[in-house]
Amino acid sequence: MLQTFRGTIIDCIGDPFFDPIDNCVRYFCDGLLVVENGYVIAVGEYAELSSEYDRIEPIDYRGQFIVPGFIDCHIHFPQTEMMAAYGEQLLTWLSTYTFPTERKFENKAYGVEVADVFLKELIRNGTTTALVYGAVFPQSVDALFEAALEMNLRLIAGKVMMDRHAPEYLCDTARESYRDSKDLIQKWHNKGRLLYAITPRFAVTSSPEQLSLAGRLLQEFPDVYLQTHLSENLAEIDLVKELFPDRAGYLDVYDHCGLVGNRSVFAHCIHLTNDELKRLAETQAAIAFCPTSNLFLGSGLFPLERAKSQKPPIKVGLGTDIGAGTSFSMLQTAKVAYEVAQLQQQKLSPFQALFLATLGGARALNLAHKIGSFNRGQEADFVVLNPRSTPLMAFRNPPLTQLSLTEIADRLFALLIMGDDRAVEATHIMGKRLK
Amino acid sequence: MLQTFRGTIIDCIGDPFFDPIDNCVRYFCDGLLVVENGYVIAVGEYAELSSEYDRIEPIDYRGQFIVPGFIDCHIHFPQTEMMAAYGEQLLTWLSTYTFPTERKFENKAYGVEVADVFLKELIRNGTTTALVYGAVFPQSVDALFEAALEMNLRLIAGKVMMDRHAPEYLCDTARESYRDSKDLIQKWHNKGRLLYAITPRFAVTSSPEQLSLAGRLLQEFPDVYLQTHLSENLAEIDLVKELFPDRAGYLDVYDHCGLVGNRSVFAHCIHLTNDELKRLAETQAAIAFCPTSNLFLGSGLFPLERAKSQKPPIKVGLGTDIGAGTSFSMLQTAKVAYEVAQLQQQKLSPFQALFLATLGGARALNLAHKIGSFNRGQEADFVVLNPRSTPLMAFRNPPLTQLSLTEIADRLFALLIMGDDRAVEATHIMGKRLK
Repeated sequence: MLQTFRGTIIDCIGDPFFDPIDNCVRYFCDGLLVVENGYVIAVGEYAELSSEYDRIEPIDYRGQFIVPGFIDCHIHFPQTEMMAAYGEQLLTWLSTYTFPTERKFENKAYGVEVADVFLKELIRNGTTTALVYGAVFPQSVDALFEAALEMNLRLIAGKVMMDRHAPEYLCDTARESYRDSKDLIQKWHNKGRLLYAITPRFAVTSSPEQLSLAGRLLQEFPDVYLQTHLSENLAEIDLVKELFPDRAGYLDVYDHCGLVGNRSVFAHCIHLTNDELKRLAETQAAIAFCPTSNLFLGSGLFPLERAKSQKPPIKVGLGTDIGAGTSFSMLQTAKVAYEVAQLQQQKLSPFQALFLATLGGARALNLAHKIGSFNRGQEADFVVLNPRSTPLMAFRNPPLTQLSLTEIADRLFALLIMGDDRAVEATHIMGKRLK
Repeated sequence: MLQTFRGTIIDCIGDPFFDPIDNCVRYFCDGLLVVENGYVIAVGEYAELSSEYDRIEPIDYRGQFIVPGFIDCHIHFPQTEMMAAYGEQLLTWLSTYTFPTERKFENKAYGVEVADVFLKELIRNGTTTALVYGAVFPQSVDALFEAALEMNLRLIAGKVMMDRHAPEYLCDTARESYRDSKDLIQKWHNKGRLLYAITPRFAVTSSPEQLSLAGRLLQEFPDVYLQTHLSENLAEIDLVKELFPDRAGYLDVYDHCGLVGNRSVFAHCIHLTNDELKRLAETQAAIAFCPTSNLFLGSGLFPLERAKSQKPPIKVGLGTDIGAGTSFSMLQTAKVAYEVAQLQQQKLSPFQALFLATLGGARALNLAHKIGSFNRGQEADFVVLNPRSTPLMAFRNPPLTQLSLTEIADRLFALLIMGDDRAVEATHIMGKRLK
């Protein structure tokens, strides 16, 4: 099946933190995206491509921006309902709000209900791929994967492993978590577009034995992911040091168990030492930068420039970190990323932000050969953004027939700062419109 | 004309930064607000009041929160169109974006057009009173006041005074600014519900002579306001010190000219010294805390607890500071205020946030006898908030017939964190529904 989409098409084909814009941002003011059987087969100027594909009428998204689907590198599906939980920072927020909420997911039917809300919310916000934490209960992950398979999403998820420092009702054991994770991998990994991530919550709630077994799983399955939290909050870091006095630091707790490598994604990483940053760089591990969560919980300001200036640069994607994050929207997430940069006297350009939300995220997940850009052969997950989606945005952005790169940058920036779910006019999964 | 409104009614009648909640937050789960000729004449439980007013059918806002209209203590009307201007901090942001934009307001017709957009945006977001900067051109203030008079708004505004360190096309002279401001005061102050604020932009762009004449105006008109900027950005503070080497500090520049008193509202105040805080307290001057702007421009984190812990406490209201602010919504502004507190290991409760956006703002503007609560005799400016205004908020906040104070606090907090213009179901001005 052939589909064509006409609009202002923008994608990143390189990293605007390093490469000149001309080399890394591709744009077609009046462009055509050509999709066959769910895969991109061509992208270019409408004037150049249209004659070749004139046997079908293009879907008309003129006046809007067509960009690759957003990639959320860190989000907790069972926390959908507990957004905006008041007044705590990480450790007390977990015990006060998170643990009682996640308990509900022992009930598979409840997981099915929330998975539906969760995935619809991703799509409403233009997020087409996410790296997701389930609850500790394997059936919560089944519920999510079943719904994601139905929607043909490229989704990565895993069952939380936690065997201590949490209420009994939420704890597995090291062996159970190993077995349950293994079963889930065998059941779901590479089924449709789904992928699995081994998911110890964080060093505090996993015994050394559980972390070691997580490392063993990672060895046994050479293409599954590892996701966990790292250096989010100062009290958390102190607690980890207390719990693991023999380790050199927080990252070393994971490293010691073989959990630090190029399939690992660490959320937050706000307070890393220089040695830890160096280690993430040399192992090609990735960071999920979660600015809305970091402000909401008062965790701190992620040092993006320090991460990107390692050699090699650390792979960084953006995460909403729902339920500590305050929005499912990657536009809103990028906005706060800009503010976090400003508070550190740094700049985050609109194309850098777009990169983090698309190709940067794809690279963090080692999926840049499948998603994150409009290169030929890519899975056609994409989003249509309307720079005039509210009365105020319509006033700021009058209709223009021709847009320069500067004007595109300006409107993209306005979308990040002022846009929300309403700015997402359409979300396409493998070409198919879901929103 | 009699009107009654039924819903969950909440207002502050004291300051929740100091008083126990029971003493300062008034709420009626199923309440009735009674308005006659635009003024509140009663508020209470529906069950108790309804028989007395049963000759008219109440407007039914059940399931929603009725709160006093929001008060925005700092906003620039000519900057409406330049929100989301990329990449600069205060001083370069002004010269790169602001000055060229404000130049357009020399054309009265342009001002009329933007005033319409601006005031509609306030109403869409539930803001019923604002303290507003015009452009340097008196006709820009005429344009705004004419439109606000038409809508019967309680609005305070003034012509910007600036006679140096700005492009020539935007500069007045000290004498012109004195005369123009005086003319505007005589024309507009106390006309309908309108009030005037003498408005030197900030110390950098006003000569000592202009500041002195601003002080003279303030003496000549004992009930007009003074608004200006103070200690927003470190480079700005250095520049002020350089320009006024004889003064003890930034605040002293204003103080020396008689501009610091109980009718003065200073925007930002992020980097004040202890002496300056003390001086603001003893003179009963007010601060407009503008969190979204402070993050967007990377200015810093306002120390709310320090301001509130002075003796007497400094009056503090919230400001959106459009166009450096990122939203017209006082809900979104309060959200970022919460995050600014969290980043300083402090808490801002939902009722404290509501106070800042309503009665706290009214007190900052010395208008608590007219607006900011539902006391008998108040002008009936109010807002109806829908805690289920998006699919995600509807999921988080299932319908409840009876709400405890804890549940009200939780939903109010969710409105702050997740709500936007869509959460404002209705905005009433003197009882009349404008949204």
